[in-house]
Amino acid sequence: MAGQRVCVSDFEEQARKVLPKAVYDYYRSGADEQKTLADNVAAFNRWYLVPRVLRDVSTVDLSVSVLGQKLSMPVCVGATAMQRMAHPEGETATARACKAVGTGMMLSSWATSTIEEVMSATTASPESGSVLWLQLYIYKDRELTLSLVRRAEKAGYKAIFVTVDTPYLGKRLDDMRNRFKMPPHLSLSNFSTASLAFSEENYGNDSGLAVYVAKAIDPAICWDDITWLKKNTHLPVIVKGVLNGDDALQAVKYGVSGILVSNHGARQLDGVPATLDVLEEVVRAVQGCCDVYMDGGVRRGTDVLKALALGAKAVFIGRPVLWGLACQGEQGVTELLELLKEELRLAMALSGCRSVAEVNRSLVRKMEFTSRM
Amino acid sequence: MAGQRVCVSDFEEQARKVLPKAVYDYYRSGADEQKTLADNVAAFNRWYLVPRVLRDVSTVDLSVSVLGQKLSMPVCVGATAMQRMAHPEGETATARACKAVGTGMMLSSWATSTIEEVMSATTASPESGSVLWLQLYIYKDRELTLSLVRRAEKAGYKAIFVTVDTPYLGKRLDDMRNRFKMPPHLSLSNFSTASLAFSEENYGNDSGLAVYVAKAIDPAICWDDITWLKKNTHLPVIVKGVLNGDDALQAVKYGVSGILVSNHGARQLDGVPATLDVLEEVVRAVQGCCDVYMDGGVRRGTDVLKALALGAKAVFIGRPVLWGLACQGEQGVTELLELLKEELRLAMALSGCRSVAEVNRSLVRKMEFTSRM
Amino acid sequence: MAGQRVCVSDFEEQARKVLPKAVYDYYRSGADEQKTLADNVAAFNRWYLVPRVLRDVSTVDLSVSVLGQKLSMPVCVGATAMQRMAHPEGETATARACKAVGTGMMLSSWATSTIEEVMSATTASPESGSVLWLQLYIYKDRELTLSLVRRAEKAGYKAIFVTVDTPYLGKRLDDMRNRFKMPPHLSLSNFSTASLAFSEENYGNDSGLAVYVAKAIDPAICWDDITWLKKNTHLPVIVKGVLNGDDALQAVKYGVSGILVSNHGARQLDGVPATLDVLEEVVRAVQGCCDVYMDGGVRRGTDVLKALALGAKAVFIGRPVLWGLACQGEQGVTELLELLKEELRLAMALSGCRSVAEVNRSLVRKMEFTSRM
Amino acid sequence: MAGQRVCVSDFEEQARKVLPKAVYDYYRSGADEQKTLADNVAAFNRWYLVPRVLRDVSTVDLSVSVLGQKLSMPVCVGATAMQRMAHPEGETATARACKAVGTGMMLSSWATSTIEEVMSATTASPESGSVLWLQLYIYKDRELTLSLVRRAEKAGYKAIFVTVDTPYLGKRLDDMRNRFKMPPHLSLSNFSTASLAFSEENYGNDSGLAVYVAKAIDPAICWDDITWLKKNTHLPVIVKGVLNGDDALQAVKYGVSGILVSNHGARQLDGVPATLDVLEEVVRAVQGCCDVYMDGGVRRGTDVLKALALGAKAVFIGRPVLWGLACQGEQGVTELLELLKEELRLAMALSGCRSVAEVNRSLVRKMEFTSRM
Ligand SMILES: Cc1cc2nc3c(=O)[nH]c(=O)nc-3n(C[C@H](O)[C@H](O)[C@H](O)COP(=O)(O)O)c2cc1C
Ligand SMILES: Cc1cc2nc3c(=O)[nH]c(=O)nc-3n(C[C@H](O)[C@H](O)[C@H](O)COP(=O)(O)O)c2cc1C
Ligand SMILES: Cc1cc2nc3c(=O)[nH]c(=O)nc-3n(C[C@H](O)[C@H](O)[C@H](O)COP(=O)(O)O)c2cc1C
Ligand SMILES: Cc1cc2nc3c(=O)[nH]c(=O)nc-3n(C[C@H](O)[C@H](O)[C@H](O)COP(=O)(O)O)c2cc1C
Repeated sequence: MAGQRVCVSDFEEQARKVLPKAVYDYYRSGADEQKTLADNVAAFNRWYLVPRVLRDVSTVDLSVSVLGQKLSMPVCVGATAMQRMAHPEGETATARACKAVGTGMMLSSWATSTIEEVMSATTASPESGSVLWLQLYIYKDRELTLSLVRRAEKAGYKAIFVTVDTPYLGKRLDDMRNRFKMPPHLSLSNFSTASLAFSEENYGNDSGLAVYVAKAIDPAICWDDITWLKKNTHLPVIVKGVLNGDDALQAVKYGVSGILVSNHGARQLDGVPATLDVLEEVVRAVQGCCDVYMDGGVRRGTDVLKALALGAKAVFIGRPVLWGLACQGEQGVTELLELLKEELRLAMALSGCRSVAEVNRSLVRKMEFTSRM
Repeated sequence: MAGQRVCVSDFEEQARKVLPKAVYDYYRSGADEQKTLADNVAAFNRWYLVPRVLRDVSTVDLSVSVLGQKLSMPVCVGATAMQRMAHPEGETATARACKAVGTGMMLSSWATSTIEEVMSATTASPESGSVLWLQLYIYKDRELTLSLVRRAEKAGYKAIFVTVDTPYLGKRLDDMRNRFKMPPHLSLSNFSTASLAFSEENYGNDSGLAVYVAKAIDPAICWDDITWLKKNTHLPVIVKGVLNGDDALQAVKYGVSGILVSNHGARQLDGVPATLDVLEEVVRAVQGCCDVYMDGGVRRGTDVLKALALGAKAVFIGRPVLWGLACQGEQGVTELLELLKEELRLAMALSGCRSVAEVNRSLVRKMEFTSRM
Repeated sequence: MAGQRVCVSDFEEQARKVLPKAVYDYYRSGADEQKTLADNVAAFNRWYLVPRVLRDVSTVDLSVSVLGQKLSMPVCVGATAMQRMAHPEGETATARACKAVGTGMMLSSWATSTIEEVMSATTASPESGSVLWLQLYIYKDRELTLSLVRRAEKAGYKAIFVTVDTPYLGKRLDDMRNRFKMPPHLSLSNFSTASLAFSEENYGNDSGLAVYVAKAIDPAICWDDITWLKKNTHLPVIVKGVLNGDDALQAVKYGVSGILVSNHGARQLDGVPATLDVLEEVVRAVQGCCDVYMDGGVRRGTDVLKALALGAKAVFIGRPVLWGLACQGEQGVTELLELLKEELRLAMALSGCRSVAEVNRSLVRKMEFTSRM
Repeated sequence: MAGQRVCVSDFEEQARKVLPKAVYDYYRSGADEQKTLADNVAAFNRWYLVPRVLRDVSTVDLSVSVLGQKLSMPVCVGATAMQRMAHPEGETATARACKAVGTGMMLSSWATSTIEEVMSATTASPESGSVLWLQLYIYKDRELTLSLVRRAEKAGYKAIFVTVDTPYLGKRLDDMRNRFKMPPHLSLSNFSTASLAFSEENYGNDSGLAVYVAKAIDPAICWDDITWLKKNTHLPVIVKGVLNGDDALQAVKYGVSGILVSNHGARQLDGVPATLDVLEEVVRAVQGCCDVYMDGGVRRGTDVLKALALGAKAVFIGRPVLWGLACQGEQGVTELLELLKEELRLAMALSGCRSVAEVNRSLVRKMEFTSRM
């Protein structure tokens, strides 16, 4: 009954109408004055696509291989916490949608579905087909941390994305004003105590999640913890949240399998660069020693194409999936992912790229002109 | 009855009032978020005119020779589909206006008047005076494609502009929302079957035209098709839709008579450069080996002058003609073309240019300063 | 009684309320889309003042010598036509205000007061004190043109500013819409026939003034006419309306006494540079061989200071004087000029300049940064 | 009862509601068109923070040493006049808040509390703990000027910040329109005569404070007065109001202990650079020969961090303290200072800085891109 959804912002518009304000605010917000939030999106408009013509684009192949898995497109679903606030089926709906579309999903440590539930929602036997990765927060309690990793290994997850940009939670004004905490019927399902499941009674007058992070998450993590993690898992380890070439070099030195250029959807520190603006620096720094991914502000097929042209192996999307969930659960997410796939296919065709391999740096140019007033 | 029209946007304003919404939307829209649509127009404001004074501008000669034809000014009418949606006389009115003003008209493959009708609307015998060119879409059905060319040759058209930027139709959100198709009393007149004439019953829930293109137009065309086309016609062949120097060089290599720098009025791929921003690159690349034209966003006499200064032999206008038609049919288009001619004449006089030959690169400068906030 | 006027825009605000719309529009308008109109003002914001401190600014000397005359400040009144539309005393009020404040006034060829009236309004004997210059349009009728010059010489005017940017009148949309002509009780007082006095019955459907210019003003003037003018007068000749270094060099070659960098208040050709943006180029080109003045967009004391720092000997203001006249006649203009004088005095003091001679290029810097979004 | 205050602008919002308009205007205003006022704030958005990750930020040390005093953070309170207009306890409340938070306060010459009152508000014996500095205006009456210095020395103030950017008061339009003077129950407490205490009956139709300054403050001060001041006090002398490298070099030559890069909160001369934009130039010029501080537009923890990264030893805040006072007196200021401290702590942690010493130039980058339109 709701109107036609023809672009990602139609999903957000509709989601905004159905979600409780505090939930919508939590999903949408960036840190502080949200300059970087706007910039993540705006950055894509600072790059042109310069198409080539007359190249026989009767077939366009979007498939790509990510961490050893073949995906139908270079657009994956990033970790976003507490998806059951958007739809009763939460992360399980998202996982089924990803499988339907043929792409991978990164499950948040802070999911409202368990690691096992999400895997089994998509498949009878853990090995058959769906591509899931675990996003890992390193808790002060390291045994607890490792138990998440082991559960992911056992359930058939294919990699660990360790988030390195959240020693403390960013300052999100709306969450402070809303005194954000989860609805009482939900909890972070991977944890069994109320204190770890973010379901205590009282988080005071600020953002409840900020209080939770300060209590539970380890602000002391450093590069040696990457070594420690790699020693404790056979899964590929990717660092999520790198924004410059020097840290990227460090990551390579510490043997990561990949780097996810991310500013956490502009939710941590306002005033950091848009991810697209630093992607190329990271790509150059690693010199092919590991894969580079990016997330932040991807909303259109042309955004994906620009990120690929600047060297990303694939991109991740955060908020759009939440809007899809809120609109129509699994079907909403499927529709959203298909929409992006078709936009990417059209963008590739109209710029003369027949496969992801044909997308290269010459496809994009940075604006050189300046504005009149 | 309607107010005085003193600039092109007055025509648009008035047209917006008289046209059905879906038609106005179809005419006006650009692809996706329409950044390039706005940029096509804004690009002209990024270049200054630096006038010279005291040059005796008592007479100013605007005439120019385009593809062997003498025109009264370097402003021609570009191909826009389905002009009878704007006015019952459609393309025939436009053609008569062009003849009255002394300029050339490019007829769309998707005209709502036949190739022959348009020619005969302007002249008793095909040879006498009016300058018409055919815009060609290459259909999957190549015989059909060639039949259009042959009809144009026979009717006295002077060149073929082959559109190379439309292997698929761009994503135009309004057309999707409006489920755009033509009013039932109209069809693409050059085709005899309903399926080719864009007059079938049901085009589903999306833009009907996008469905039509996917079915009929060949997305496999490549540079060899230019060779094929040239082999099959004695008319000059111009490629329409080039946006960079490399493709321009290709075009020269394949022996085209001209290049039309165009992004299809920003209707195909959003995020491509404004045409004015790439014009000079194309002009430099071809090194005089063929003529370079441009279209996109031309709305004022000073816009024309800037394009000439950057190396265009002539410019084409798309939407303004539709506004003229909608306002007052043939007379509206005549008035619009005269208005642009007078604006160009004044712009040339006030910048010290007595003829098109005197317009050169030193007349324009790119803005170098940046904005305060 | 109107509220306090603390800055130039307060004068405009108030004038807008008291003037008939068509008059206000005529005074305010720029050509076409008025980009340059806005840019003339905005350009001043693209330059910083970088003040010096601790320089004993207990006295600040604003006086300057312009074309051999000592003025109380480097801010003069530029030629604006038809001042009696703003106030019954028109140009005579302005002249008296200039004298009161100690600055010079350039009288328009198109004044609604005669050359002689304006001089005698300020002084019993032509020689005593007030500084007047004549702005000259070169008419097709050269004898008529010279008669203006001779009258100015006789009346004691000190120089001729010949306008070189108006072979035709710019296209001003509001004047076209308003079918602008003068109120019937007024005429261009320096001319005796209705056709030259812009007081005929019918100027058709467009701007009456554009019609007048096309009929009367000579679009064929060229550099030799400067030679001709210089041969016919002993007064210094300044060219008004130069916008680039090449024309400035020409002017020097043809022996002018000064160059007024001007785009006619953005009323002739839209899209030309803001005058401040080309001032330095002109100053550099002439290498001190003649004085350089500028007008366009000067609205604040800091604007004057920036223009001086970039090499202007003095600046002229156009519209602000009309607002002053409309507000309160002679007293309004006096108040406005005093306000600018005090703003300039404060700006000089706060930037450490004790005299105009101490203002130099190091006082200003062009913005180098770019905007975030 | 008022809503939660989660960022500095919440304080301003609330203050605007409780303050009389003329007081709010006086506090908020900048000079003239307030371009620099906006720019002071906007400048921070022109610099990115480029965070480093995985650095063990479990503890973050904000402490810093300023002019020999240990402070809990590099954010100090700058001199703002007449604080009792914001709250009955005025400067004494501010001083107590500073002491509570562990930072220093610069007392204005134009305080509505005496030098002695402010010191004794925070401590029984002058020596115990609170860090106060005196901001000094040099009066025409030099004995009076020195008496302020001597009183500060005696009361235990730790330094003299001599303001060098106010030979005359800047033109603040709102104060002119409001004919600003102090409420009758208040006066500049450090002076005993009505004429020096800014409590005369009639200041005419303009800003009363501008009249006061013109009468009392010495516009003739020059570098030798720095020598004179240093000869007359054993306290460190800092010049407040330097905006370029050349003046900074002068300051070093004249033996100052520090330079406060300031444009007086954009209240003196509009069109001068944002302070952040010139900070680095000053830092480079002095080559470590004296400390460099800055004020202007600091509103967020990330602003502080950026200023430190560009070389400031500490920053001062002006208006935010007035908003804190207006909201809730001492407690409001304490809350505001704590809020900035926590924002700074979070910003440092999230960018990988464990102490102020670890903040360096590599943390920030100037934007290099330009805007689309
Ligand atoms: C509501 C929300 C919750 C998020 N939760 C997590 C999380 O639990 N773990 C994590 O590493 N990143 C989290 N992120 C960051 C995302 O993984 C991703 O970096 C970001 O959303 C990408 O930007 P986009 O939303 O503009 O696509 C979250 C983002 C949002 C919007
Ligand atoms: C309503 C409309 C229909 C168009 N139809 C065609 C077409 O049939 N064939 C084609 O090659 N270009 C077509 N174009 C593109 C125009 O030829 C031209 O490139 C464009 O309109 C120029 O930009 P302007 O509208 O800003 O002047 C169309 C454009 C519009 C606005
Ligand atoms: C209403 C009006 C009338 C003008 N008339 C004349 C004129 O008669 N002759 C001339 O040389 N310039 C004329 N000008 C241009 C001014 O001399 C001057 O170049 C311009 O006004 C300066 O810009 P400003 O108005 O932004 O200060 C006129 C300008 C205005 C606004
Ligand atoms: C209301 C107000 C009063 C001020 N009074 C003084 C003063 O008495 N002496 C002085 O040197 N600076 C004074 N200043 C300037 C401040 O010391 C400081 O430079 C400025 O406020 C910093 O900018 P900010 O307000 O953006 O933080 C004043 C500023 C304001 C806003």
